[in-house]
Amino acid sequence: MSIKICIIGAGSAVFSLKLLRDICLNEGLRGSKICFMDVDEERLDIAYSLARRYAEELGRKDLAFEKTLNRRKALQDADFVINTALSGGHKASEQERQLEEKYGYYRGMMCFSGTGYYTIGTYFRQLKLMLEIARDMEDICPDAWLIQASNPVFDGCTLMTRETKIKVIGLCHGHYGVYRIAEVLCLDPKKIEFQAVGINHCIWLTDFLYKGKDAYPLIDEWIEKRAKKYWEEWKGEPTDVQMSPASVFLYRMFGLFPVGDTPRFAGAWWFHTDLKTKKRWFNRYGGFDSEIGWNYYLKRLGERFDEMKRLRESSKPITDKLPPKFSGEQHIPIIDAIVNNHKDIFQVNVPNRGCIEGIEDDVVVEVPAIIDGNGMHPLHVKSLPKFLTRHIIKTHVIPMELGLQSFIERDKKILLYIILSDHRTKSLEQAQELIEKELALPFNKDLREWFGKETFEEYPYII
Amino acid sequence: MSIKICIIGAGSAVFSLKLLRDICLNEGLRGSKICFMDVDEERLDIAYSLARRYAEELGRKDLAFEKTLNRRKALQDADFVINTALSGGHKASEQERQLEEKYGYYRGMMCFSGTGYYTIGTYFRQLKLMLEIARDMEDICPDAWLIQASNPVFDGCTLMTRETKIKVIGLCHGHYGVYRIAEVLCLDPKKIEFQAVGINHCIWLTDFLYKGKDAYPLIDEWIEKRAKKYWEEWKGEPTDVQMSPASVFLYRMFGLFPVGDTPRFAGAWWFHTDLKTKKRWFNRYGGFDSEIGWNYYLKRLGERFDEMKRLRESSKPITDKLPPKFSGEQHIPIIDAIVNNHKDIFQVNVPNRGCIEGIEDDVVVEVPAIIDGNGMHPLHVKSLPKFLTRHIIKTHVIPMELGLQSFIERDKKILLYIILSDHRTKSLEQAQELIEKELALPFNKDLREWFGKETFEEYPYII
Repeated sequence: MSIKICIIGAGSAVFSLKLLRDICLNEGLRGSKICFMDVDEERLDIAYSLARRYAEELGRKDLAFEKTLNRRKALQDADFVINTALSGGHKASEQERQLEEKYGYYRGMMCFSGTGYYTIGTYFRQLKLMLEIARDMEDICPDAWLIQASNPVFDGCTLMTRETKIKVIGLCHGHYGVYRIAEVLCLDPKKIEFQAVGINHCIWLTDFLYKGKDAYPLIDEWIEKRAKKYWEEWKGEPTDVQMSPASVFLYRMFGLFPVGDTPRFAGAWWFHTDLKTKKRWFNRYGGFDSEIGWNYYLKRLGERFDEMKRLRESSKPITDKLPPKFSGEQHIPIIDAIVNNHKDIFQVNVPNRGCIEGIEDDVVVEVPAIIDGNGMHPLHVKSLPKFLTRHIIKTHVIPMELGLQSFIERDKKILLYIILSDHRTKSLEQAQELIEKELALPFNKDLREWFGKETFEEYPYII
Repeated sequence: MSIKICIIGAGSAVFSLKLLRDICLNEGLRGSKICFMDVDEERLDIAYSLARRYAEELGRKDLAFEKTLNRRKALQDADFVINTALSGGHKASEQERQLEEKYGYYRGMMCFSGTGYYTIGTYFRQLKLMLEIARDMEDICPDAWLIQASNPVFDGCTLMTRETKIKVIGLCHGHYGVYRIAEVLCLDPKKIEFQAVGINHCIWLTDFLYKGKDAYPLIDEWIEKRAKKYWEEWKGEPTDVQMSPASVFLYRMFGLFPVGDTPRFAGAWWFHTDLKTKKRWFNRYGGFDSEIGWNYYLKRLGERFDEMKRLRESSKPITDKLPPKFSGEQHIPIIDAIVNNHKDIFQVNVPNRGCIEGIEDDVVVEVPAIIDGNGMHPLHVKSLPKFLTRHIIKTHVIPMELGLQSFIERDKKILLYIILSDHRTKSLEQAQELIEKELALPFNKDLREWFGKETFEEYPYII
């Protein structure tokens, strides 16, 4: 069936090429048109030309390509929109992170919905962009599906599903962390079954079976007998935190094992106070989110983009670098499931509507869903332990609610309240000053206008 | 109608005498029996003998008196139980507060349900005592009403109404703060109408009328034109914080004026970082909860008790000191309303059951209720603003839920999690060590046994 897939933020050349590869390998999507959209012309050109060449190399002349800097044009006739954009890019985020560190927030704010480090600017720029895209879709392609790939998936998908009628699916890699658990436990990944649910970046292993039998005792045994040696001898990438002491702590605390990005955040400020503490809890680099881990990640991103640039200049076949095999990403298989009625189970982020007990219906949760020609059918899953549900509401759901309320009502008081909730905030003035300084950054002109002129001067009543 | 009223913690002689005075002034309670119970024999004797003399002076020979050190005996045939007891007394609390200050928690913990400073020990001793009393009542006087006067009213009443079938009413003075607002605004208190709702120690002025018209503009005008002068010239008791800068801040932040004890706590850690900051936000003594304010309160308590002691020794009429007029407390009028079907409106703490939107049914809220011979009929009240409701859930409801879960399940991990939530906690070790040290205090033997031997040694996985 011939459809149009629109990739917003397609200048992420590595990711775009991954998606394209999955499209090329999928016979069910013959004759599709793929539209690349980005605000960065250079990056867009690179991704677009590599994609065209790649499709040609694989003999997929049936696929049509389009590129544009104009988002509304890109959305014209779209059936699926994949949003991978990071508004302002890493450059703006890193500049903000520097400012926040100056104000006492090591590695940036941890108060936004607990699902990660977000600078104030990044958080609101992303919400703003996501809502604009979903609203444009309501206008231009109201029946299209939106697949949200960039963060914050939790807050953004909750926002878009509440404020628009667009069909939204949020995706993340996190749940694949289960295969890392299996690997460390020396289990055959083909013989495990699992359920990892919660909210994005905060998912927990409610079921874990090996050869049909409960495999939690294998985790317990590993902790007791092998974890210490594993940590001592550990050699991995800074991003590898799945089997870290932090995960074991969270498991002991809440009774379920955390999966994927969960140990990175989890609302547990005490893992994150400084590099030394991060090293103790995550790995010898201090984990993904330390200055070491994050800079490693950014460097890798840069290198991979440079590689794309070189690939474009060279005449070597791209397939040498990127052999034609499925990426493992869910985006294209989900499109295939909907378009060609290929029923399968996926891990999605969608409004709760009763899937997880104790969480409101209109809060986006991460659960398995059957997807087929009739759309998406999220599964009702096992309840989380009460203590864990309370933790999630306290550190994730309420901060998300406050973030969205602050954004929608353009209310700087609520933003102040959020910053006051960060465990590193020491005084009202520190929070007030940081907000003003961050909104004053030149690239935050839109946000400044969004929140208006209200300042906090009226607050400090000095007696 | 002849009933039996049992006062637990009757050694609070001032309070017991207040209650007795209201009984003496109430013709509807003729022939009643009043049972004084306390674990402190000296204090019990003083309260008991003063009460008997006072009733005699007023010619109320119809009233019968009883005193006992045995709680179960006291509950025998009781129709109403008024619980005013503080388990361990202020002595234990103050010793714990000292320890907590040593661990970096100025003035004690602020993480227990946000409704006040509670030391770890005081919080759990109180929950334990309240539940024991309610369970004894189920056994001995299952149809009696329990009027809960001592704190934490919010957590304790939620606990007792969930875990037992006893009819519980929690009472507090806080809502009278509205008359202080009226006084400062120079309004005739007889001409105001109001509704102040929320949860105990966290109630907000949803309605405020003067001569039938909205009086919020009068508050706004006072803030704009008179507040600064009022604060500069303020001369009052340390406990007087109703019209403090903290209240104005909270009003601006959440959109409703805080009433009574609300500005004291309100989950706003930034008012409380040190004495200087407290002075800025509350009053020149740093408010009720500063070292100045609290020691003033304890000193007053001591002085008033000494006065009771002297009264007992002297042969002067007690009525000279305590003229026979209504105290203004709600306890005895509520008993009268139930016993004699004297329908009236009271401010009570009872399970929500839909009274306030956005708060679970089994969480105790503070709302007006009609009380009559058929019992209690809480009123459905105006919704609080969304931002405020979220604040209350984050800083009061969830900490209460965690506190109760930690208590009921005897789970020290949850206690650790609560202490980690205190904004002053800087590390895991600080929290762990304080818990162990506080439970090791000699008078906390019961709590030590309650939580069992589990320590936190298993947690710190040092790599």
